[in-house]
Amino acid sequence: MAGSRRPGRNFLFVPGPTNIPERVQRAMIVPSEDHRSSAFPELTLPLFEETKKVFKSREGQIFLFPATGTGAWEAALTNTLSPGDRVLAPRYGQFSTLWIDLARRVGLDVEIQDEEWGTGANPERIEEALRADREHRIKAVLVVHNETTTGVTSDIGAVRKAIDAANHPAMLYVDGVSAIGSIDFRADEWRVDCAITGSQKGLMLPAGLGLVCVSKRALEAAKTAECRRVYFDFNDQAKANATGYFPYTPALPMLYGLREALACVEDEGLENVFARHRRLADGTRAAVKAWGLTLCAKDPKWHSDTVSAVMVPEGINGAEIIDIAYRRYNLALGAGLSQVAGKLFRIGHIGDLNELMLLGALAGVEMAMQDAGIRITPGSGVAAATEHFRNTREG
Amino acid sequence: MAGSRRPGRNFLFVPGPTNIPERVQRAMIVPSEDHRSSAFPELTLPLFEETKKVFKSREGQIFLFPATGTGAWEAALTNTLSPGDRVLAPRYGQFSTLWIDLARRVGLDVEIQDEEWGTGANPERIEEALRADREHRIKAVLVVHNETTTGVTSDIGAVRKAIDAANHPAMLYVDGVSAIGSIDFRADEWRVDCAITGSQKGLMLPAGLGLVCVSKRALEAAKTAECRRVYFDFNDQAKANATGYFPYTPALPMLYGLREALACVEDEGLENVFARHRRLADGTRAAVKAWGLTLCAKDPKWHSDTVSAVMVPEGINGAEIIDIAYRRYNLALGAGLSQVAGKLFRIGHIGDLNELMLLGALAGVEMAMQDAGIRITPGSGVAAATEHFRNTREG
Amino acid sequence: MAGSRRPGRNFLFVPGPTNIPERVQRAMIVPSEDHRSSAFPELTLPLFEETKKVFKSREGQIFLFPATGTGAWEAALTNTLSPGDRVLAPRYGQFSTLWIDLARRVGLDVEIQDEEWGTGANPERIEEALRADREHRIKAVLVVHNETTTGVTSDIGAVRKAIDAANHPAMLYVDGVSAIGSIDFRADEWRVDCAITGSQKGLMLPAGLGLVCVSKRALEAAKTAECRRVYFDFNDQAKANATGYFPYTPALPMLYGLREALACVEDEGLENVFARHRRLADGTRAAVKAWGLTLCAKDPKWHSDTVSAVMVPEGINGAEIIDIAYRRYNLALGAGLSQVAGKLFRIGHIGDLNELMLLGALAGVEMAMQDAGIRITPGSGVAAATEHFRNTREG
Amino acid sequence: MAGSRRPGRNFLFVPGPTNIPERVQRAMIVPSEDHRSSAFPELTLPLFEETKKVFKSREGQIFLFPATGTGAWEAALTNTLSPGDRVLAPRYGQFSTLWIDLARRVGLDVEIQDEEWGTGANPERIEEALRADREHRIKAVLVVHNETTTGVTSDIGAVRKAIDAANHPAMLYVDGVSAIGSIDFRADEWRVDCAITGSQKGLMLPAGLGLVCVSKRALEAAKTAECRRVYFDFNDQAKANATGYFPYTPALPMLYGLREALACVEDEGLENVFARHRRLADGTRAAVKAWGLTLCAKDPKWHSDTVSAVMVPEGINGAEIIDIAYRRYNLALGAGLSQVAGKLFRIGHIGDLNELMLLGALAGVEMAMQDAGIRITPGSGVAAATEHFRNTREG
Repeated sequence: MAGSRRPGRNFLFVPGPTNIPERVQRAMIVPSEDHRSSAFPELTLPLFEETKKVFKSREGQIFLFPATGTGAWEAALTNTLSPGDRVLAPRYGQFSTLWIDLARRVGLDVEIQDEEWGTGANPERIEEALRADREHRIKAVLVVHNETTTGVTSDIGAVRKAIDAANHPAMLYVDGVSAIGSIDFRADEWRVDCAITGSQKGLMLPAGLGLVCVSKRALEAAKTAECRRVYFDFNDQAKANATGYFPYTPALPMLYGLREALACVEDEGLENVFARHRRLADGTRAAVKAWGLTLCAKDPKWHSDTVSAVMVPEGINGAEIIDIAYRRYNLALGAGLSQVAGKLFRIGHIGDLNELMLLGALAGVEMAMQDAGIRITPGSGVAAATEHFRNTREG
Repeated sequence: MAGSRRPGRNFLFVPGPTNIPERVQRAMIVPSEDHRSSAFPELTLPLFEETKKVFKSREGQIFLFPATGTGAWEAALTNTLSPGDRVLAPRYGQFSTLWIDLARRVGLDVEIQDEEWGTGANPERIEEALRADREHRIKAVLVVHNETTTGVTSDIGAVRKAIDAANHPAMLYVDGVSAIGSIDFRADEWRVDCAITGSQKGLMLPAGLGLVCVSKRALEAAKTAECRRVYFDFNDQAKANATGYFPYTPALPMLYGLREALACVEDEGLENVFARHRRLADGTRAAVKAWGLTLCAKDPKWHSDTVSAVMVPEGINGAEIIDIAYRRYNLALGAGLSQVAGKLFRIGHIGDLNELMLLGALAGVEMAMQDAGIRITPGSGVAAATEHFRNTREG
Repeated sequence: MAGSRRPGRNFLFVPGPTNIPERVQRAMIVPSEDHRSSAFPELTLPLFEETKKVFKSREGQIFLFPATGTGAWEAALTNTLSPGDRVLAPRYGQFSTLWIDLARRVGLDVEIQDEEWGTGANPERIEEALRADREHRIKAVLVVHNETTTGVTSDIGAVRKAIDAANHPAMLYVDGVSAIGSIDFRADEWRVDCAITGSQKGLMLPAGLGLVCVSKRALEAAKTAECRRVYFDFNDQAKANATGYFPYTPALPMLYGLREALACVEDEGLENVFARHRRLADGTRAAVKAWGLTLCAKDPKWHSDTVSAVMVPEGINGAEIIDIAYRRYNLALGAGLSQVAGKLFRIGHIGDLNELMLLGALAGVEMAMQDAGIRITPGSGVAAATEHFRNTREG
Repeated sequence: MAGSRRPGRNFLFVPGPTNIPERVQRAMIVPSEDHRSSAFPELTLPLFEETKKVFKSREGQIFLFPATGTGAWEAALTNTLSPGDRVLAPRYGQFSTLWIDLARRVGLDVEIQDEEWGTGANPERIEEALRADREHRIKAVLVVHNETTTGVTSDIGAVRKAIDAANHPAMLYVDGVSAIGSIDFRADEWRVDCAITGSQKGLMLPAGLGLVCVSKRALEAAKTAECRRVYFDFNDQAKANATGYFPYTPALPMLYGLREALACVEDEGLENVFARHRRLADGTRAAVKAWGLTLCAKDPKWHSDTVSAVMVPEGINGAEIIDIAYRRYNLALGAGLSQVAGKLFRIGHIGDLNELMLLGALAGVEMAMQDAGIRITPGSGVAAATEHFRNTREG
C-alpha cells in the first residue's frame, strides 16, 4: 500500500480534543489494578483536592465521571433540579444550543435568551430576566463560558454580578469545557454552583472524563432534586468518594493521566498557562488581521483565547479550506456549525501548545486559503504572529 | 523512602478489571485526533461490526458509550422502557441487586424473584411469572448472566425458552458484564434484546467503555420509550454512528484498544477463549476441592468459568485472607459482598490469563489461607490444578 | 517550581537524532523475551531481509549491532582490513574527519584527500589517486555520503565510476549515516562494500543500532582481516544470524522498532520518502534564499536533502542563534563544528517530517535570527517555502 | 490464523534478560532530543553518580556504552591493557570461557585456571599463581562473579584477599553481569578495577547498555594501554562525560530507563533487593530438594542467588523439559550450555520478581518435568517454596 502513510505529525488545531503531553501519555500507561484495594485512595484522595485548583475552588466538591462533557452537563442538571424546574439560558452558538436541548430533554423548562452569534451572555438581560421573575421560578442560570462555535468568551464574573444585582436566588451553572485550564476561571469567587468540563480540552487528556465542581448549595439541592439519574448521581459518588473509592469501576488511565496533567499545569503555573493562551490567541488574531480577514466574534471583548473563528470571504466555502488543510497539509481545523456552516473555519489554540506549533498551523492555513482561492499575501499572517511573539517575550 | 517499592507484578485475580494484554496497551497509546475528520470512520465502521462477533450477533446494533457497565445498564433500560413499566428480575447476588435498584431509580416497577445466593435465574419460575402476567404488563426480563458475587452462571438459553414457552412478549435483557468474551454468549440465538457489557472484563481493556448490543425490536422500542436520557440516548448515537461518528467526543484510546482486543480474541479464536476459561476454572475448582473447601455455587450447573467464590471455614474471616493476600503476597482477590461478606473470598479467572499465572495465584491463596489459620495441605491445590492442566492439554 | 515546564513539543531540527513516529515508538514498548527461544527467528530472519531494501541491496548481508554509527564505522574497517592497510579518504567536514581519525586509531594508513568544506568527494581526484597507486596498496576508499557538518552530499555513483575507471581493486566504504532512508542510496548498483548507518536518522529510531550492509567481497575479506575485534566481529554475527540469533543479547526494542520503521518506509514508499526529503529541502533552500543568506554548500550539486547549513552574516555568531532558538522557541538547530564553528547554523530536515513541521521551524529560525540582530523580512522565508510547497504538490 | 495467540504473560525465567518494571518501561518512552543541548547534562551528570551506588563505589568512574555486557568486557580489557599482556583467569563455565576467548582475541596472553564446573574461582590457586609470578607479568585477574551456566557465585572478597596476600600488583576485573544489582557487590571495598555489567539483568532494562565502573588505577592505565579501541575508548568518553555529554549519540531511552531503574532500586533499598533475591533463591532451592533433584553447584557456598541450574536425572534430556515448558506452558527456562548441554536446565530468579511469579514458574517446571517423564510428587516443590516464604516473611 505504498503511498498510504502520512509522514510527520498531524497538526491538531480543532478546539478540542487537544494534544496530550508526552508525560501525560506515559502516565496513562497503567496496568489494571484492584480499585477496591486499601492502597487505591492514595491515588484518589489527593486527586480530588488537586483538581479543585484548576477550577480555583476551595469550597467545591469534585465529581469525576467516566463520561464526557455532555455527561457532565447532564449530571449537573439532573442532580440539582427537578422536572419542570425553570432555568434561564442565553443561546449564542451550537454548544449553548445543545445544552439547552439537553436541559429540555431531561424535563426542564428553559427560558432562552437568544443573543447574536458572535456575542455572548448579556449580563444586563440576565439581570432583567431575573428581576422580572418575582416568584423566583428560575432555579438556575446556564451559561457557556467559551462558545467554541464562534470563538466567543462570556464574562462570567459579570453574570454573577447580574444575578446578585437582581437579588435572585437562582444558581449559576457554567459550561467551562473549552475554558477551564486555559482561560481564567474562578469557581469560588464567581460562586459557580456547577462548573463543568471535559478532559480533552485544557486538561490535555483524551476524552473520557467528565468533571463537575459543585458548590455546597448545589450539593444540598442534590438531596431533593427529582430528575432521575443513577450513573451520574452525585450522592452515590460522594458517598464512595469520601473514602477514596467510586460506586463503579473507574477509568484508571484517565485518573492517572489527570494527576499528571494537573502536575503539568502546576509546573507551568496556572497563571502562566492563561498568559500563554492569551499570547498565542493574540498572535493568531494578529495573523487574521494581516490576512485582511475578520473574526466571528463581534468585538474584542468577546475574543476567545482558546479558539478563533475566522470568517471567510464571500464566495468561498469554509468547508473547502478545512478539507484542503486536512488532505494536503495534515492540518485539522474546526468547521463552521449550524448557522455559520461554511461561513467560517476555526483555529483552536488550546492545550499543550507553543509558538512554533501555532506558526506551523498558521502557515498551513495560509496555504489552504490560497489553494481555495483566497488572496492573501503569503507569509503575512505568520509574520504578524512572529512579530507579536517577539515583542511580548519575557524570558 | 527505602522499602516502599513492591517488586514484580501484582497478581490481579479480582473478577474484573482484568489484565490488559501488552499489545492492547500499546494500541491505546494514541495521539488526539479530530473525531470529525473524513478518515475517522475508517476506524469506527469496521469496529462496530467486529464488536458484534463477541456477542455472537449479526442482527444487533452495537452502542459504545464512554461509560461503564453501570452506564450500559442505565442505557438499556432508559432507552427502551417508560416510567412505570414493569420488569421481571431474578435476584441472587450483589450485581442483580444493584441492577434492580437502578431499574427502580429510573422509574420502573420491578417484580423481583429472589433466588438463594449460590443459585441463579430459575427458568421455571420465570415462565410461571410470565404466564401469570396475562395482561402482559411485564415489558422485560432482566437477568444477570454471570453473578460475580457468588460465582454463579445462569442459563440464558433456558431463560429464553421459558419466555417462549410462556408465549409472552417480554423483551430479554442480559447483564453479560463478566461473561461476554469469556463465557459463551449468543445474542442472536437467545434473542437477547439488550446485551450489556463493560470493557474491563472479557474485553481486557481498562474500564471506560459501556457496550450494549441491541436487537431490532429494542431499537424500535427506543423510538417511543419515555424514560429520560440524553447522554445515553440510542437514537442520537444511531444517527451519528451510521456514518461512523459519535454525538460527542469519543474516548479514542478505548476505541483503538477495543479494536486490538477484538483482534486478540480473533487471533486466539472465540471458542478457544471460552475453552481456556473453562479449563482454568476447572483447575481452580480442582484446587478448591483439594483444599477441602467448597464453592458458594450450590451445584456444578451454576459454576462460573470466570470467577470462583470460595467459602471459608467457620471462625475464619474471608476479609482477612484477602487482606493478607494483598499485603504479603501482592495478590488481589475479590471480597464477599453484602450477605456473604466475610464468608467467602473470590478468585477471578477471567481475561488475559494462562495456567502459570493462575497457579501462582493459587499458591498465593494457599499461603494466605494458611497464614489466616486455615489448615490445608501445602501445595495440594496447586498439585490438583496442575494435574488437571496436564491431563487436558491438547497441543 | 512554577514556570519550569516547556509547553508543547520540542521542534527537533538537528540533523539527527530525528523524530520517532508514534507507531514506531509504540512498537518499541516490548516486554523482555528469551532471545534464544524457538520463536525468536520469526522476528529476526525477515528483519534482515527487510533491512536490505532501504540500502537497495539484494546481494549484501546486514549486520545489526547494539551500537551507534561510530560502532558501525569501526565494524566496517576492523572486519575487513588489517593494521597497516592503506585506505583513501576524502575529508571535507567533521564527520569525514572523525572517520579518518578512527581509521588511524585502529591502525590503518589513511591517505587523505582534503576538499574545501562546502564541497564533497572529488571523483576525478579519487581516480587520479587510484591510478597513481599502481601497486594497489590502497585497499579501500572511504566516503561520507552526506556530510552533515556542511550540508553536502557527495555523488557516490560517480565515486564508483572513478574507481572503475582507474581499474583499481579498492573496496568502497560509504558512511550513509544521514543519507540512508532519506536520500537515494544504491548499495548494489554502486557496489558499495560496506554501507554504514545508524538508527537515529532516516530510520527514525533512537540511537542504539549500528547497521552495516556488507558485500560478498567484504565478507570474504573478513575471513583474513587482522584488525582485532570481538564485539563487532562479522563472523560471529554471521554464524549466529544464519539461524536468526545473535552472539550476545540483542537490544530487543530496537529490533521491534526497526521492523516498524521499515514498515513505515514501505507504507510511504521508499521513492516517495526520497521525494519528500527533496521537497522539504527545496522549501528550506527557498527560505534561505528569501532571507538573503547562503548555504555552506558551494554549489547546488552539493546540496543535501537532509540538512542545510546556513551561513550567518559577518558579525553574527551562529551559536547565539542556536541558543536563542532553543531557549526562547524550543527549537533545536545544529551548530557549526570545528572550522565552521559560529559561522553557520544547521537545519536538519530529515526523518519523519512534513511541511507544517518544517514551516514552524522556519518561522522559529526567522524569530531567532531577528532576535540575534540579523535583518530579514519577517515571514519571507516561510512565504517562499509555502510557495514552493503549493507549487509542487501532487495529490 | 485462529489459535495463534498465546494468552497471558510469558513467564520469563532465563537468567537474563529480565522483566522490565512497568515504570521503567514507561520511562523509556521518550521523544528524540538534542543530546548536545544545554539541558542534556541535567539528565546525565546525576545519572553517572546514581549508577555508582549499585556498584557500591564512590571512587570509581562510570562508563555507559550503547552496547552489551560483551562490549563492556571488551572495553575493560582494551582500555587498560596492551597486546601481549598476561592476565590470569579462572574458567568454570560458558561465560568465563567466552570472556577468556575475547581476551585472547584482543591480543592478551591468558593464563587459565580450570575449575570444575559447579565450582568457581579458587582464591588459594589464584594466590599461588600470583606468588609464582615473581616478575609480575600478570597484569590483571579476570573473574566472573556469577557464572550463569552453572548457577555458581564466586567469592570476590576472597579473591581480593588472595591478590593482597600474594602482594601482587595485578588489577582485578570482575564480570558482574548477572550479579550487580541483585547480589551484593562492593567495587570499592574489594578494590575492583573494572566492574562490568549489562543493562538486561539486575538493572531490569532491555539489553543495549554496557556499564563499566572503573577504578582510578585502571583509568591511569588507560592512558598508556595499547590495545586498539575507538568506540569503547574510556578517554573519549571521560572527556565528553565530564560536562555531561557523550562522544557519539547516546541511546536515550536506555539512559532514561536507567535513571528510573536506579530509582526502583533506591525505593526498594539495595540491601532489600539482595535479601529478596536470596529469599527467592532459597525458595527455589527448597523446591529442587523437594523434587529430589540436585543443583549443578557442588556446594552451598557456590549457590547463586540469581540462577539455579538443576541437574536432570539420567536418561532425561534437559532440553526437552525446556522445550515443553516453552511450548506448553509459556515458560522460558535457561538451557544447559557446552559441557552441561542437556544435563541441566536453569531457572533464573533475577530482577523484578516476587514470590507468586516464582511459584507460578515452579508449578510450570513441575508440569514440564512430569511431561518429560520425571517422577516427582506434584506440588511438592511449590509446597516447599511456600513453606520457605511463609517462614521467612518479615512484614
